[in-house]
Amino acid sequence: MNIRDHKTALDRKVALEKETGVLLSNIGSFSLDEDAASSRNCENMIGAAQVPLGVAGPLRLKTKDVRHKREEKYYIPLATTEGALVASVNRGCKAITESGGAMVDSHRVGATRGPVFKVKNLAESDLLYKYLKTHLGDLQKIASQTSRHVTLEKLLTRGVGRYRFVRFVFDTQDAMGMNMVTIASQAMAAYIEQKTGVTCLSLAGNFDIDKKPAWLNFIENRGTKAWAEATIPVNVLKNVLKTTAQRVFDVWLAKCMIGSAISGSMGFNAQYANVAAAIFLATGQDLGHVGEASMGITTTEIIDGKDLYVNVCLPDLMVGTVGGGTGLATQKEALSILGVSGGNDGKNAQKFAEIIAGAVLAGEISLLASLSEGTLAKAHKTLARGGK
Amino acid sequence: MNIRDHKTALDRKVALEKETGVLLSNIGSFSLDEDAASSRNCENMIGAAQVPLGVAGPLRLKTKDVRHKREEKYYIPLATTEGALVASVNRGCKAITESGGAMVDSHRVGATRGPVFKVKNLAESDLLYKYLKTHLGDLQKIASQTSRHVTLEKLLTRGVGRYRFVRFVFDTQDAMGMNMVTIASQAMAAYIEQKTGVTCLSLAGNFDIDKKPAWLNFIENRGTKAWAEATIPVNVLKNVLKTTAQRVFDVWLAKCMIGSAISGSMGFNAQYANVAAAIFLATGQDLGHVGEASMGITTTEIIDGKDLYVNVCLPDLMVGTVGGGTGLATQKEALSILGVSGGNDGKNAQKFAEIIAGAVLAGEISLLASLSEGTLAKAHKTLARGGK
Amino acid sequence: MNIRDHKTALDRKVALEKETGVLLSNIGSFSLDEDAASSRNCENMIGAAQVPLGVAGPLRLKTKDVRHKREEKYYIPLATTEGALVASVNRGCKAITESGGAMVDSHRVGATRGPVFKVKNLAESDLLYKYLKTHLGDLQKIASQTSRHVTLEKLLTRGVGRYRFVRFVFDTQDAMGMNMVTIASQAMAAYIEQKTGVTCLSLAGNFDIDKKPAWLNFIENRGTKAWAEATIPVNVLKNVLKTTAQRVFDVWLAKCMIGSAISGSMGFNAQYANVAAAIFLATGQDLGHVGEASMGITTTEIIDGKDLYVNVCLPDLMVGTVGGGTGLATQKEALSILGVSGGNDGKNAQKFAEIIAGAVLAGEISLLASLSEGTLAKAHKTLARGGK
Amino acid sequence: MNIRDHKTALDRKVALEKETGVLLSNIGSFSLDEDAASSRNCENMIGAAQVPLGVAGPLRLKTKDVRHKREEKYYIPLATTEGALVASVNRGCKAITESGGAMVDSHRVGATRGPVFKVKNLAESDLLYKYLKTHLGDLQKIASQTSRHVTLEKLLTRGVGRYRFVRFVFDTQDAMGMNMVTIASQAMAAYIEQKTGVTCLSLAGNFDIDKKPAWLNFIENRGTKAWAEATIPVNVLKNVLKTTAQRVFDVWLAKCMIGSAISGSMGFNAQYANVAAAIFLATGQDLGHVGEASMGITTTEIIDGKDLYVNVCLPDLMVGTVGGGTGLATQKEALSILGVSGGNDGKNAQKFAEIIAGAVLAGEISLLASLSEGTLAKAHKTLARGGK
Repeated sequence: MNIRDHKTALDRKVALEKETGVLLSNIGSFSLDEDAASSRNCENMIGAAQVPLGVAGPLRLKTKDVRHKREEKYYIPLATTEGALVASVNRGCKAITESGGAMVDSHRVGATRGPVFKVKNLAESDLLYKYLKTHLGDLQKIASQTSRHVTLEKLLTRGVGRYRFVRFVFDTQDAMGMNMVTIASQAMAAYIEQKTGVTCLSLAGNFDIDKKPAWLNFIENRGTKAWAEATIPVNVLKNVLKTTAQRVFDVWLAKCMIGSAISGSMGFNAQYANVAAAIFLATGQDLGHVGEASMGITTTEIIDGKDLYVNVCLPDLMVGTVGGGTGLATQKEALSILGVSGGNDGKNAQKFAEIIAGAVLAGEISLLASLSEGTLAKAHKTLARGGK
Repeated sequence: MNIRDHKTALDRKVALEKETGVLLSNIGSFSLDEDAASSRNCENMIGAAQVPLGVAGPLRLKTKDVRHKREEKYYIPLATTEGALVASVNRGCKAITESGGAMVDSHRVGATRGPVFKVKNLAESDLLYKYLKTHLGDLQKIASQTSRHVTLEKLLTRGVGRYRFVRFVFDTQDAMGMNMVTIASQAMAAYIEQKTGVTCLSLAGNFDIDKKPAWLNFIENRGTKAWAEATIPVNVLKNVLKTTAQRVFDVWLAKCMIGSAISGSMGFNAQYANVAAAIFLATGQDLGHVGEASMGITTTEIIDGKDLYVNVCLPDLMVGTVGGGTGLATQKEALSILGVSGGNDGKNAQKFAEIIAGAVLAGEISLLASLSEGTLAKAHKTLARGGK
Repeated sequence: MNIRDHKTALDRKVALEKETGVLLSNIGSFSLDEDAASSRNCENMIGAAQVPLGVAGPLRLKTKDVRHKREEKYYIPLATTEGALVASVNRGCKAITESGGAMVDSHRVGATRGPVFKVKNLAESDLLYKYLKTHLGDLQKIASQTSRHVTLEKLLTRGVGRYRFVRFVFDTQDAMGMNMVTIASQAMAAYIEQKTGVTCLSLAGNFDIDKKPAWLNFIENRGTKAWAEATIPVNVLKNVLKTTAQRVFDVWLAKCMIGSAISGSMGFNAQYANVAAAIFLATGQDLGHVGEASMGITTTEIIDGKDLYVNVCLPDLMVGTVGGGTGLATQKEALSILGVSGGNDGKNAQKFAEIIAGAVLAGEISLLASLSEGTLAKAHKTLARGGK
Repeated sequence: MNIRDHKTALDRKVALEKETGVLLSNIGSFSLDEDAASSRNCENMIGAAQVPLGVAGPLRLKTKDVRHKREEKYYIPLATTEGALVASVNRGCKAITESGGAMVDSHRVGATRGPVFKVKNLAESDLLYKYLKTHLGDLQKIASQTSRHVTLEKLLTRGVGRYRFVRFVFDTQDAMGMNMVTIASQAMAAYIEQKTGVTCLSLAGNFDIDKKPAWLNFIENRGTKAWAEATIPVNVLKNVLKTTAQRVFDVWLAKCMIGSAISGSMGFNAQYANVAAAIFLATGQDLGHVGEASMGITTTEIIDGKDLYVNVCLPDLMVGTVGGGTGLATQKEALSILGVSGGNDGKNAQKFAEIIAGAVLAGEISLLASLSEGTLAKAHKTLARGGK
């Protein structure tokens, strides 16, 4: 079978069914726009994967920012196949909301793309270094010409051996932006080649560093950096979470700090990856970025000897509300549930990142509480019996 | 709105539509089994996310193993919203298949769960250390009593401060297994508490270390470790990949090795995460494990001055062919395309991991070739214009 | 000048003085045995470096071990040029000793050497894997024939690409042992080459991993792993350390845990490197191993709301009491101060590692206390003025 | 014995001899200035450690820089107890010098000190962030008032939980500078407390990050960053190093890149630590910084199919030519051999860092050549027999 011979998802599906003898009726059943999806999102399309989508909430979030101050309640769309996750986040949302809500904050850092240039020797490496340091303005012009949505913000460069690595950092408004920053970087790399005579060895030299767990992204941050914090009073700890501040603190210190430290982990947290993956999937984010979203640090403190302060810090959320999969049928609906679908001068993407931080906070609170009370296995046992 | 008041996905969807004013007709449109999904996979279900699913292939794979020797062609199901990915993997499959196929191999390492115990002092920490070292057999019995599919293989333990961390490593046959190893660990932790008088502080102490990028999993491995290798002859390099062995080697060395090294990365590769995420999503894997799958090392060599040897090593694939999301409608079909749906004494999961390695190899070959020829941005530009 | 033309340190020194016009009278002034040093420790010797050597203590240490139970007081020899260090350790020793002493413990892990073999493909890599797994006994024999002080304990092996890395782990009794394990590994590598036909590409393939900061050594440990713990009661905190348990705990959590975490550090501590370097230098250890000794985790706890528990965990102490620089004049005297000079079936080296852990604990307690009281800069200011 | 009761090194030594029964005649024999050393470098001084000091060279080094262009030959002072090290570096020097010398380069990055502040919540964390971003000038003034040798260059800050970490980066001219940057940071921290009302929890919060192996220093660099490169022609490879470019390249790729990668290492090199430690010790550097100096990347390339290009990149050399131990008797002589003793507007320290890079390059070339020819163990065997 040559899959490329066929022009529609249905034709390809039928051909593959013949080839493999497997009936693909569910994959073939979808409501998304095939023309758009097959041209923009997925080549050789034969249909669609369906993943159960639930909601957690309401989750009450607050921001400090006067410009777009808000205090709103959100229902968090979570697409997942892992039983207990939505319930866990939901419990965390309840605890937060009953505690008066979580404060969220964020910094827009930017998408990165990082070419690597091949230099002749240290002297040429230094010349290129100096060129880059003194021509940011020129490069910004070149970048801007490739799209009105992309702005080169800054660059970082490192010389190793006969290589000079560059990390361009871009504002991409409401888009995650890897597509446009790649095009912008191509234009800049060509310009640099022309102006300096140095050859670009590869448009992406892993100093980006895209979709790999890496300290560079943890330290320099990438995409949007987001925080969320909440103080859970003793009565909510007792009634909703069935635990105490001291117990959660003890589990957090042992697990998220010391346990992560001895494991050589970039994730000092309980389950960022679970919550991020479920929101990413629901809202059309690039799932290759789940690893980056799993980095970060949860901190807890006991307040007044009885209440529990919890804070999550996510240094690297590569997310967007336009482009990629965000315009697909169910994904657009999920973003709309959060009120952040489409472009809005970067405000939607930033707000979305803050909501993710809030949901991640809910997940941390709930799981750490479970572990502190020994109920994690119980939840799994219930699932193993196939239901609630 | 209290989402828990509603008993069906439709009721919840309608309630949420009212609450938010957003029409959720696509999320509400699905063919998967709601009863199973809402009880096992996703609480508060309101519908399903749809993600475009394409196939790459055929991909010819070979194994060295006499027991289940095979040389088969596979069509790789990839669910993704990121344009160019399926095309990229498809081109890699073509290059591999025209080169005579890729050899794959794997080691079954095992799922891990890691409790942390609180000890009084170094002396008690050492007593617990000795207890654990001398009671593996007892613990294995306890673990086996919790499920006939779970076997405790070994344990690793580390003492830090007044904590003793344990990492239980399990065979879970064809299941990814986090559910069952959690239950088994709970039973063992309770047993250890009873026998030693030491308290289990948390059933999961991040020495597991689950869903966080961590050197411990890279070094000790987790789930299934898999490799794939292929030698691409000069004519395939020229005709299919439009490049040369030297160019790909140069890009690989600069990007995957040196660029990753200076970024503090656990991924010495081009795009493991992309391929893993798309297969994981298509086949019902836990997407929280994408970060673990993004670790690993690609190596290349120039053979006879003209051909290209490429090898991928994935130390941590937490995948399964039963349980979790693998039994859902489209996911089961996707696994069936690969011939690995359901349980088969662990052979299906291992074969599945090897196929993933083969597909990841295809992705590496294709992207490194693109970068070596400067065509990455071109592909993105085409997408930006909205089609092929 | 050809430094090799000269036969004595004096001749070389004079020649270098002529060549450079620099008078080297202090370097030329030493009491160590030139013949031994120039043949075993330092080629092209022109003299000796002199480094001020002070002592901290007494430090009271206890062990749990019945076999060589002890409770002894030690004076810790510290060679350093960094003012305030000896005073800082001394204060920590006082705090510990007045608190009844520190408990120490250790595991002998072993020195490592790691050849890398070049294989043809995955199949050959697997064959070599199986050979290694089934021929440990043969390899142990080969290793033992190279020295009666060396024993191959185990091996770890990883296959990546067409490389198979091996990490041999040895008992080397009281020697740090890199010299003898290199010779043993050479013999084993030659044997493996002969038996399997696979080529050893390099006798040291950095899977050892010697003298580089690496998670492998943190996780798998290397040399001797050592711990020390002490509980400092409130009155000692007040009188000796001028602080409280809460303040030290707060600084520790912020600095050693969270600050280290966001810095991508392998050292979750205050100043292991300072104390280790000073003892290493005083006692003739290989200073290239200071980086390995700087890894590790300090933990603290508040006991009964007022006392302070502190624990240090050093996973990788490559130290010895025979061989290397330990037999040199001042170094031997320094080891004798501790009562651990020379060979003693491995007991001296292990005891020495435990003493180092105790001294490191003293350094942690003192510096964390200083930071908690804001007196670090004051100590530096005193130094800047040139004295006490 | 109370060591503090005694006023001179001799008195303390005698008291310790009585206490321990160990004769310390060699430790008691030294020519360095006791008064200066005991007041500035080492409290409770009882004497001095003696470490054999040899020289390697001549090593021919070149710089690209017009301002202080030079092409000079250096004899490298190495204090070490590890036999074969000086000989190894010496062979590398010979290979470099016969190849026309090594080009060196460097960037002055700066010493760092990093306080951590305790904030009330995310809002206050953001206020402090904004304060720091907009008051660099004020802080620079405060810092400069503490010493005319210290200049605050920039600051980096990160918020996590209720902590705000700061990393001040300073120019400290020819001093390594940890002493003066601590004093400057104290002044700035006090000023920030006064201006913002936020409390400084600890003057050093490990975001510095001093003397621990950490990705932050690798990525952001610290102290002086230095490079060295040389191309070794085929005849020198053959005659001096007894190897070929291909063999060295193969060993480098397997060991320094892939072997280091799978070990989770921050050192992608052969033996930076050995060379750095020996120079540090000879010249009075702080040996606690050896771990930082062991980070970095060696790269090699085959040129024209026969010659060998080698490059070392050391991102974190905390070194100085004034202050600390650099003014002690033998240390000052060792710096004078290199022509870099004392202060010189930062030029001496930078030149010194470049010389270290050149010597480290020599060590890399020599050891990689040895490994490529299988002679490492032979050198160790010779040593084991006690001489040349």
